[in-house]
Amino acid sequence: MPPPDSSDTTASHAPVAGFRFSAASAGIRRDGREDVALAVADAPAVVAGMLTRNQVRAAPVDIVAQRLQAGSARAVLVNSGCANACTGQAGFEATLASCAAVARELGIAEQEVLPASTGVIGALLPADRIAARAGELVAGLAPGRFPGFARAIGTTDRWEKIARRTIDVAGRQASVLGIAKGAGMIHPDLAPARASKAPSGPPHATMLAFLFTDAAIGRDELERALAGAVDRSFNACSVDGDTSTNDCVLALASGASRLALGASELGPALGEVCSELARSMVADGEGAEHVAEIRVVGLPSEQEARLVARTVATSLLVKTALYGRDANWGRLLGAAGRAGVAFDPARARISIGGVEIVRAGVGVGGDAEKRAAAVMAGKSYVIELCLGDGPGSFGYLTSDLGHGYVDVNAGYRS
Amino acid sequence: MPPPDSSDTTASHAPVAGFRFSAASAGIRRDGREDVALAVADAPAVVAGMLTRNQVRAAPVDIVAQRLQAGSARAVLVNSGCANACTGQAGFEATLASCAAVARELGIAEQEVLPASTGVIGALLPADRIAARAGELVAGLAPGRFPGFARAIGTTDRWEKIARRTIDVAGRQASVLGIAKGAGMIHPDLAPARASKAPSGPPHATMLAFLFTDAAIGRDELERALAGAVDRSFNACSVDGDTSTNDCVLALASGASRLALGASELGPALGEVCSELARSMVADGEGAEHVAEIRVVGLPSEQEARLVARTVATSLLVKTALYGRDANWGRLLGAAGRAGVAFDPARARISIGGVEIVRAGVGVGGDAEKRAAAVMAGKSYVIELCLGDGPGSFGYLTSDLGHGYVDVNAGYRS
Repeated sequence: MPPPDSSDTTASHAPVAGFRFSAASAGIRRDGREDVALAVADAPAVVAGMLTRNQVRAAPVDIVAQRLQAGSARAVLVNSGCANACTGQAGFEATLASCAAVARELGIAEQEVLPASTGVIGALLPADRIAARAGELVAGLAPGRFPGFARAIGTTDRWEKIARRTIDVAGRQASVLGIAKGAGMIHPDLAPARASKAPSGPPHATMLAFLFTDAAIGRDELERALAGAVDRSFNACSVDGDTSTNDCVLALASGASRLALGASELGPALGEVCSELARSMVADGEGAEHVAEIRVVGLPSEQEARLVARTVATSLLVKTALYGRDANWGRLLGAAGRAGVAFDPARARISIGGVEIVRAGVGVGGDAEKRAAAVMAGKSYVIELCLGDGPGSFGYLTSDLGHGYVDVNAGYRS
Repeated sequence: MPPPDSSDTTASHAPVAGFRFSAASAGIRRDGREDVALAVADAPAVVAGMLTRNQVRAAPVDIVAQRLQAGSARAVLVNSGCANACTGQAGFEATLASCAAVARELGIAEQEVLPASTGVIGALLPADRIAARAGELVAGLAPGRFPGFARAIGTTDRWEKIARRTIDVAGRQASVLGIAKGAGMIHPDLAPARASKAPSGPPHATMLAFLFTDAAIGRDELERALAGAVDRSFNACSVDGDTSTNDCVLALASGASRLALGASELGPALGEVCSELARSMVADGEGAEHVAEIRVVGLPSEQEARLVARTVATSLLVKTALYGRDANWGRLLGAAGRAGVAFDPARARISIGGVEIVRAGVGVGGDAEKRAAAVMAGKSYVIELCLGDGPGSFGYLTSDLGHGYVDVNAGYRS
């Protein structure tokens, strides 16, 4: 199934120089679908990662955190159907064993393989099943097989999430290819893998994203570009407010284009790819029918705007109102008011899809609300809360929450 | 409709000395039910209040905040069907006018009337309709009419919330009678009305509670007792994580029993009344079928335990799992891990209704999960997360979230 409003996808099917992809069915998922995916760099690639801040981290996340210290890697091995989280030492060893099996087949060091997993928490990864497919995975590697990679890493996803941008500098080009999965437990709160700081706030969902570029870029520059891109995309979207134990974003740069770029040159393209993937994830939010960008403007700082936007975006009463296509601005303002950020409610303005429904803190009237409700019948729209005249603004993506979400999540394991 | 597992209610129908109650239908609600309630103290009563920390406060909350400064009051005037929030200066004047009308009828100063409202945000309070019923309200006052008061303040409530305790000191008795409403927008974050500090964290729902005691107690002592009682009851429960613009708890002490009490003597009874009311609110959570106490133990401090318990209690993935009666401990542990509190997942133990399902951070097995799932078929149970061996513990009440919640909230205004 294609994403809604998908743009031309033929262009995005071009490969990115220096990488090959494959997928296989290892029987981890019960439905027999492809559930193991492999990406391999022809030569050691520069890597950077952003990992979940959750205190409870799955085995593959712990292992990636260690292996990213090296600054380069050769392969990414991902499975769906099993998160391998909360599986103790046995889980740790299972991830190591599956990486080792693929490394042997590739003839590289096992430390050069970066693992990622998604699926039910608490189930032990069946490393033997992945090992049994290592030969098939490696034999199947091809530059154009990333759509298969994208399919295999999905869980409750209704469509594959692939985005692509090209950077043009003085007639020379580099590409960024992004592949992601995620439809539930989506509210990433990712921190740079190399930073050792403690969690700074309540984080959030499993989303996985893998970014491949043929740009030539140094490790520090890649990390800086990735951190900026993730902060305004994956870290600015929520389906259900729950961070996952497995959230992980990895960026690999092959340098095969021989176009040398800095963070400020790669950053915008990386940011666009991440934003497109984040939007696709929220649109695919379990049971979601609408994507709303909660845009908060006029606060003293971006940080305050982000906090208000996140509080509104994760409010259950707001999300059920989006589902009901109800321009219930009282819920919007009520949620904004509990973010712990000071503002003067008497100056608040709210508009939905450009239709102003609150002015100076009070409702504009039933006619405006009806027009706003008509906007809310659409698949995608912007809700803007203007809370003052400061320079701080932030946009946060959220989905509606209705019966579909309950259906998916009340019986996920059964 | 009675609450589930209600204890003997005949005892709780005894009046509390020094107070009279009444209710009337003023046509604020569309369904014609009683929607205005009045409580009057025979003489000025000592008062204390805990009000929402939401930046967006309804007109009655602003007015109560001012009037509580006096330290005493004569009457509480409550309406359902209209929150009178985000209604600007007109809303402020409407609340003042309704209080003034009742004060005239009672022959007291209008500043002695404490207003409270609940209902849809954004609609202007029809003060004239309340004024038109002022005579009827005052004429109807009687000590035993608090059940009518309880009915009239309800909105989506399925049953009245009334709790009562008696304090016995050396053969002399004082009573505490509590009346509350609240079924949605429930996640109170209340701060003492006299404290001027800014919001300290993301608050939360409309719940209203009114506590009447015939104990003789000073203002400071009453405030201290109330703050302690609210902190572990209303401030420790959540239906949907949304604070309301109208959340308000008021305590009035008539002194009519002539039994003089300090905070430490009144506190426990006040706490029990608030806890019983909070549990009844969560049980009545919109569409809720189960009440779970999320009990976190073993952390270094109570504050950290509260933060983890609140994060688990408000997790959508946890709440949908409760609805699905799924002992999905991965979601419990995942939510705990994103609270921003450090703990060692490898030491975590989790039990549901005493059935241990996680030991040393890993699942005990399918049999235990089946037994835990059987517990989850019940109306009320405890989920305990033991995250270390520290002294900090906290219990937080939450409800399951399923199709009933979506039904109530996706079409609330329509």
